[in-house]
Amino acid sequence: MRTHYCGELRSSSIGETVTLNGWVDRRRDHGGVIFLDLRDRTGIVQIVSDPQRTPGSYAYADALRNEYVVQITGRVTQRPPESLNPRLPTGEIEIYADEIQLLNAVHKQLPFQVATADTETVREDLRLKYRYLDIRTSRMSRNLQLRHQVVKAIRRYLEDEYNFIEVETPILTRSTPEGARDYLVPSRVNPSEWFALPQSPQLFKQLLMVSGCDRYYQIARCFRDEDLRADRQPEFTQLDMEMSFMSQAEILELNEGLVCHIFKAVKGIELPRPFPRLTWVEAIERYGSDKPDTRFGLELVNVSDLVKNSGFKVFGSAIAAGGTVKVLPIPHGNNIISNVRIKPGGDLFKEAAEAGAKGLAYIRVRDDGEIDTIGAIKDNLTAEQKQELLQRTGATAGHLLLFGAGDTATVNKTLDRLRQVIGRELGLIDPDKINLLWVTDFPMFEWNAEEKRLEALHHPFTAPHPDDLHDLKTARAQAYDLVLNGVEVGGGSLRIYQREIQEQVFAAIGLSQAQAQNKFGFLLEAFEYGTPPHGGIAYGLDRLVMLLAGEESIRDVIAFPKTQQARCLLTDAPSSVDDKQLKELQVVSTYKPKA
Amino acid sequence: MRTHYCGELRSSSIGETVTLNGWVDRRRDHGGVIFLDLRDRTGIVQIVSDPQRTPGSYAYADALRNEYVVQITGRVTQRPPESLNPRLPTGEIEIYADEIQLLNAVHKQLPFQVATADTETVREDLRLKYRYLDIRTSRMSRNLQLRHQVVKAIRRYLEDEYNFIEVETPILTRSTPEGARDYLVPSRVNPSEWFALPQSPQLFKQLLMVSGCDRYYQIARCFRDEDLRADRQPEFTQLDMEMSFMSQAEILELNEGLVCHIFKAVKGIELPRPFPRLTWVEAIERYGSDKPDTRFGLELVNVSDLVKNSGFKVFGSAIAAGGTVKVLPIPHGNNIISNVRIKPGGDLFKEAAEAGAKGLAYIRVRDDGEIDTIGAIKDNLTAEQKQELLQRTGATAGHLLLFGAGDTATVNKTLDRLRQVIGRELGLIDPDKINLLWVTDFPMFEWNAEEKRLEALHHPFTAPHPDDLHDLKTARAQAYDLVLNGVEVGGGSLRIYQREIQEQVFAAIGLSQAQAQNKFGFLLEAFEYGTPPHGGIAYGLDRLVMLLAGEESIRDVIAFPKTQQARCLLTDAPSSVDDKQLKELQVVSTYKPKA
Repeated sequence: MRTHYCGELRSSSIGETVTLNGWVDRRRDHGGVIFLDLRDRTGIVQIVSDPQRTPGSYAYADALRNEYVVQITGRVTQRPPESLNPRLPTGEIEIYADEIQLLNAVHKQLPFQVATADTETVREDLRLKYRYLDIRTSRMSRNLQLRHQVVKAIRRYLEDEYNFIEVETPILTRSTPEGARDYLVPSRVNPSEWFALPQSPQLFKQLLMVSGCDRYYQIARCFRDEDLRADRQPEFTQLDMEMSFMSQAEILELNEGLVCHIFKAVKGIELPRPFPRLTWVEAIERYGSDKPDTRFGLELVNVSDLVKNSGFKVFGSAIAAGGTVKVLPIPHGNNIISNVRIKPGGDLFKEAAEAGAKGLAYIRVRDDGEIDTIGAIKDNLTAEQKQELLQRTGATAGHLLLFGAGDTATVNKTLDRLRQVIGRELGLIDPDKINLLWVTDFPMFEWNAEEKRLEALHHPFTAPHPDDLHDLKTARAQAYDLVLNGVEVGGGSLRIYQREIQEQVFAAIGLSQAQAQNKFGFLLEAFEYGTPPHGGIAYGLDRLVMLLAGEESIRDVIAFPKTQQARCLLTDAPSSVDDKQLKELQVVSTYKPKA
Repeated sequence: MRTHYCGELRSSSIGETVTLNGWVDRRRDHGGVIFLDLRDRTGIVQIVSDPQRTPGSYAYADALRNEYVVQITGRVTQRPPESLNPRLPTGEIEIYADEIQLLNAVHKQLPFQVATADTETVREDLRLKYRYLDIRTSRMSRNLQLRHQVVKAIRRYLEDEYNFIEVETPILTRSTPEGARDYLVPSRVNPSEWFALPQSPQLFKQLLMVSGCDRYYQIARCFRDEDLRADRQPEFTQLDMEMSFMSQAEILELNEGLVCHIFKAVKGIELPRPFPRLTWVEAIERYGSDKPDTRFGLELVNVSDLVKNSGFKVFGSAIAAGGTVKVLPIPHGNNIISNVRIKPGGDLFKEAAEAGAKGLAYIRVRDDGEIDTIGAIKDNLTAEQKQELLQRTGATAGHLLLFGAGDTATVNKTLDRLRQVIGRELGLIDPDKINLLWVTDFPMFEWNAEEKRLEALHHPFTAPHPDDLHDLKTARAQAYDLVLNGVEVGGGSLRIYQREIQEQVFAAIGLSQAQAQNKFGFLLEAFEYGTPPHGGIAYGLDRLVMLLAGEESIRDVIAFPKTQQARCLLTDAPSSVDDKQLKELQVVSTYKPKA
């Protein structure tokens, strides 16, 4: 039907007769001349109708309202100088509408105006219930198109540069809960048995390497039945990759190329290479985090050795208990950050408390270079220690030093949090800056205090560092995360490909041989038949696109997301189902609503 | 690690030193010279090792066994003339292995040999249980790579030629059973409520059109909990497309381009265009099928009018009851097909009976042109009727005429089935021929005798033909199927985009207003807010790839398929799950195993 899209018309088409399809974005009646903004996926163009110049369309134009669907045929005309619109790509022209055909009208009151939804904040529940209107907004339309462009760039890079092949792995698979909860699906054909939806294609992609598939990728749907704190979705999308016969260095190199290609393709940005790398130990030491935002400084300084013998009890006992004392040095902090904010009830105190800290010790460096602090610290430092402290933290006149003291994990968590809050407050973060960083050499395990057992930090298929095989419990993993501006966007590892090592790792995380055999027997057996060395990575696609789109929630880059209560407001899923369906599946709900 | 893939080495590399990774496909010891076929995803290359020319590798080569994983560095050498292998792309060269590194061995007896699995038939249950070995075979490796190439060709055509964007639609969605059974997923967060896995993204893709998305596609996973007769899978993959503001003619045109692009890209075949088109009425009349194999003739001839007044009771009563009498004329059938095969107990009788026919009447045209038959038919035809019958069916000396008589659907089903069996038997089907055909103008509804109601032939969102709105029950639909050599590979339609018509169609299939509102209220409401005219199509990707690969089961083009009992033999899914998991979901199985 149409000859052009709305957003692609330029002054080069002046004089042409065109046919357009789209929605009435806005309609303005300027004293007998009707202006319509006509919108489609590509943008907006101005349509003009009046009784003199377009007698055939005026009555129709007059009857149109916002969001009506129309077909318009008209002449592309130069706009008069006073109505040029440089903010619109089509702003040099307008269309004189010779013919307007109404394809479909709006029969109900719109829950919100599409044209102004980007500037006037619309309640998210309305946006989700009427998602088909929300996606018409330029913001959501742009986001979904950006998402498509990102995926397209990924596919082409992997296929054309590196011969990856895409393989689809099952959605109905076996429950192997390890980490998050599985979504389960009752089997009708095999009653009392259940499928699980995959938390990731991890096992299948490794089996594809055993299959000789060599280089696999998939834009894979993954499912985790978690409590939806923060910005999580029950189903999310992963760029999932796995490759055989490649070293960690080669895998990182290939992935840097991929990420650079994405930024170039969708943002036109050339990223500098190679990306900086930090070991996990170094990242934790300097930033208190394994996904540091390296767009700004404010690095932490470990002063445990310096203060361990000071008489200040908080420091001394932290270190005696095997903990740490670290400092977050804040230039100009002395003037900017008041005591009230640091002490109980203050905002910085609250941040620290939420990270688990009991309090915040601090030192102020006055303009004259004198140290000022609550008595106990100052009084317990010698002049040499004070001097060393200033020197090591780079503190000069005007600095504020915030101390974390206690068990190491809490100290790091606390100071990482404060560093981010204060970095933002001080305007140290350039929002246009793009910092990519590899964090490598993660530990294999972390201690799960609740279950009193070691837990795989990534997952139990991660290969230990070959130098650390003598003591698996403290071993480094051959694992790597890609961090973008302080957000983990990808993570991967070389995998175990030998049965003995896999069994040792299962044992280390407290999986009995019988449990390991029951859950992962097929993988252990596959290792016996010629498994190549292999490794891979997975990227959170929703999060990556969110960052590229400048959005703050992954819901804004997903066409039909669920709410934080795991509901779809558009289709009202989940829902009750017919008894007949449950009867056929031989399952019942045991839920008793509270009276 | 590697410098080349195995299958890509040619004589142009002679003299180079290369490093390869792969599996030992076969190992042969020719009196002190060891030949290895080294295999990776790209193919096979011959490796040579002996104590004289490659002293550094001989001991290692000697120790290798089938399916060991190795890295080999060696010199590319011209094969001696007597050992050139023209059947192998790498058959002009071999590699003198200077260095062999064992990366992983095989520790168990192989359940089958990979190298010979393609020629020696391996039991399918073994192939599925050890799928990672099965995928190493050249057959399965080729099939999965072909599948990838098909998907790649689809994506590039739709993205580059027509600006389609890919949008992901939810897997956890609302149950709207209509047709097949849904797979259900209990919601933990919303106890007693269930998600369903989508049977297709139909509603979401239509909502994307309401969203102004304009042109959408997705390689979409779909789920149907059906009894797995024939070649079905619980989860299967669809190329799913939807587009706004396009006529049926434009949609067919675009899709012909797509299919031609696929055949060109993966098979190098230029298909003639446009594809032939048959209306549904014509297809049924001439072939008894809405997906006729048009690679051969044997067209059916309707003789109802001719025989309705004949005294032969079977014909007369069929027509009196509103049924049909049709003929399948078989040239040379008189000699080839014996009476025994047509009469009760015969193979053709059985085929007819399985289609629902009670028997098979027939006429033989003897070499002298005389008609021979069981008495009752011949005796009840006048000389003119006999003459007319021969003329209309094109029967000459040697023809066999098989009659179908009864209700129209059964007659068509019977003769369609016989036509296919006999076409194959007579060698009328050229396996290299590729016949594509559009079947159009399907009826909106068919009668479901069991439920005593009309049922949508495609689905209830299909738009009726605008000329037939006066009587929806007998209306044609604006629906089209693409048929490849007698197999339906795609089907689609223009969709309803007006609430009134959608409500009429729901009413016609017996859905009450309340039911329609409960199941599809969100769609009906969306129609109120400016829905564009739109239409689409979906292709069964598994089936399309199966045909392109020359396979007979879709299991052979799916990496990890399920058996006909809906089980995964590799991971042993579905399985029982921990009580804790079910408790959290507040569901139980009511299944009681039989004692």
